[in-house]
Amino acid sequence: MDMDIEIKDNERIDDLQVNGLRIIQDTGGFCFGVDAVLLANFTKAKAGERVVDLGTGTGIIPILIAGKSSAASVLGVEIQAEVADMARRSVELNGLEERVEIINMDIKDIPTRLQLNTFHVVTSNPPYMHPAGVKNPNDKKAISRHEIMCSLEDVICMASRLLMSGGKFFMVHRPTRLADIICLARSYKLEPKQIRFVHPSAGKSPNMMLIQFTKGGKPELKILEPLYIYEASGEYTRQIRDIYSSESIGVI
Amino acid sequence: MDMDIEIKDNERIDDLQVNGLRIIQDTGGFCFGVDAVLLANFTKAKAGERVVDLGTGTGIIPILIAGKSSAASVLGVEIQAEVADMARRSVELNGLEERVEIINMDIKDIPTRLQLNTFHVVTSNPPYMHPAGVKNPNDKKAISRHEIMCSLEDVICMASRLLMSGGKFFMVHRPTRLADIICLARSYKLEPKQIRFVHPSAGKSPNMMLIQFTKGGKPELKILEPLYIYEASGEYTRQIRDIYSSESIGVI
Repeated sequence: MDMDIEIKDNERIDDLQVNGLRIIQDTGGFCFGVDAVLLANFTKAKAGERVVDLGTGTGIIPILIAGKSSAASVLGVEIQAEVADMARRSVELNGLEERVEIINMDIKDIPTRLQLNTFHVVTSNPPYMHPAGVKNPNDKKAISRHEIMCSLEDVICMASRLLMSGGKFFMVHRPTRLADIICLARSYKLEPKQIRFVHPSAGKSPNMMLIQFTKGGKPELKILEPLYIYEASGEYTRQIRDIYSSESIGVI
Repeated sequence: MDMDIEIKDNERIDDLQVNGLRIIQDTGGFCFGVDAVLLANFTKAKAGERVVDLGTGTGIIPILIAGKSSAASVLGVEIQAEVADMARRSVELNGLEERVEIINMDIKDIPTRLQLNTFHVVTSNPPYMHPAGVKNPNDKKAISRHEIMCSLEDVICMASRLLMSGGKFFMVHRPTRLADIICLARSYKLEPKQIRFVHPSAGKSPNMMLIQFTKGGKPELKILEPLYIYEASGEYTRQIRDIYSSESIGVI
C-alpha cells in the first residue's frame, strides 16, 4: 500500500506506535513534539463530531484524533503548501482520506471558505514564540515556531468563529502566555474551563499547558492535576507511558 | 505582659509557632486558615518596604509579615469594628505596635484615607465565595467568607490604587476564579507574574492558589512548582513543614 505514496528524499516515515498509525516528516523541517501528542490525547472528540485543527503541520493531530476517536471528520488547515502536501500523503498512508481532509490555506481566510458556527471541536498547537528576532521569515521551521503567519489572536478568533455555541477549543501553549491567552479568549467568548500544566519532572515549573475552552461557557475554571513527563531517573513517567500506549483518545 | 491585654470570653490565644508570635481568635468567628499562612510566606516584603493587607481579619498576615520580615510598616485594613479591635490587641500581644497598624474602615474608603500610589506591597486573603445564598449578611463569618462587603473587583482595584509603579500585589484565592482574577487585574494594570497552585495532595486538583501581580509589569507569567499540603499518609508534606518552621518570610 505504501508503494503508491510518494516519499521525498528529505522525508522519513515515523511509526506513531498507536493503533499502527504512521506519519511522514521532513527531516530538515519542523517535526512534531510531545506537545502535539499530549494535545491529541487531551482533546475529547465524541462519535460523529466535526473537528478542525488550526495550523496542522505534519497532520499529526488530525491523524491521531481520527485514528483514535469516532469523530465524523477532521479538517486540518495548513498555510504552507509543501507541508500541507506532506500531511495529505500521511493521511493517505494511514487510509484516513474519508475522514481527514488537509486544506492548504491561511487561517485568516476561514470565514470565506468554511462554514462558521458549525464545528463541535477545534484544536491547535500554534506557534509559541514572538516573531521578533526571526532572521528568515520564509523558513519553514520558523513559520511553525514563531507567530509570523498567524498570531495567537488569529488562532483564538478563528477557533471561536468556527465553533457552535457550547463547542470546545483545545490548545497547547506555554504557561508564560496564560494571561494573554485567557484575556484574548474571553474577548472572543471562549471561556477557559480546564487547564492541565505539563512539568518536565517533579519539583520543576511547567513548560507547557493544555487548555480547554467552551464557546459561551460559564466562568469556572478547573486546574487538573499536573502531568509530569520524566521520572527523576530520566525515564518517562507512568502518566506519559499510559498516554503513548492508550488505545482511545481523550482518556488520561 | 499579657496581663495588660484584654482577652474576651469568646476569645482564645493561639501560638503561631513562628518566632514566638501569637494571635487572638474568636472561637465562634472566622479563624485563620492555612491559606493565610501560605500567603504570608509567599509574600516578599523587603527591608524598609511599606505594606498594606486588605481585609485583614484576625491580623494574621500583618503579624506574620512584621514578625518575619524587616518591612518598615504593615497596615491591616478591616471593615468589622469588633474584628479590627481583636486584631489590634493581637498586635499589642506581640509588641508590634510600632510597625503594625490596624485600621477599621471599608476598603472602598481607601482613596480618601490612605496615600495612593505609594505602597511597595499589598496583600489580600479576600472572601472567596459569591454572596448569593448568604442567609445572614451581618454574620461575621459570612462577611469573611463571602463577597458581601467587598467584591473581588474592589480588592483588585484598591490594591492597584495603593501600589506604586512596580509595586507587588500578593493574593490567595480559588483556582476556579483564575480567569476572572487575571482579566480584572489586567484591567487595573496589575500584571500576573507568578502563580503557585496548592494541592491537597499529589494527584489531586489544586483548591487554592497564590498569585503575585506587578503594577505595570510586562506580560510574562511563571507557574511555580506545585505545593502539596498532605502526604498520602495524611501527614504534612516537607514543603508545608518547612513553611511552618521557617524563620524568615518569603523563603519557600
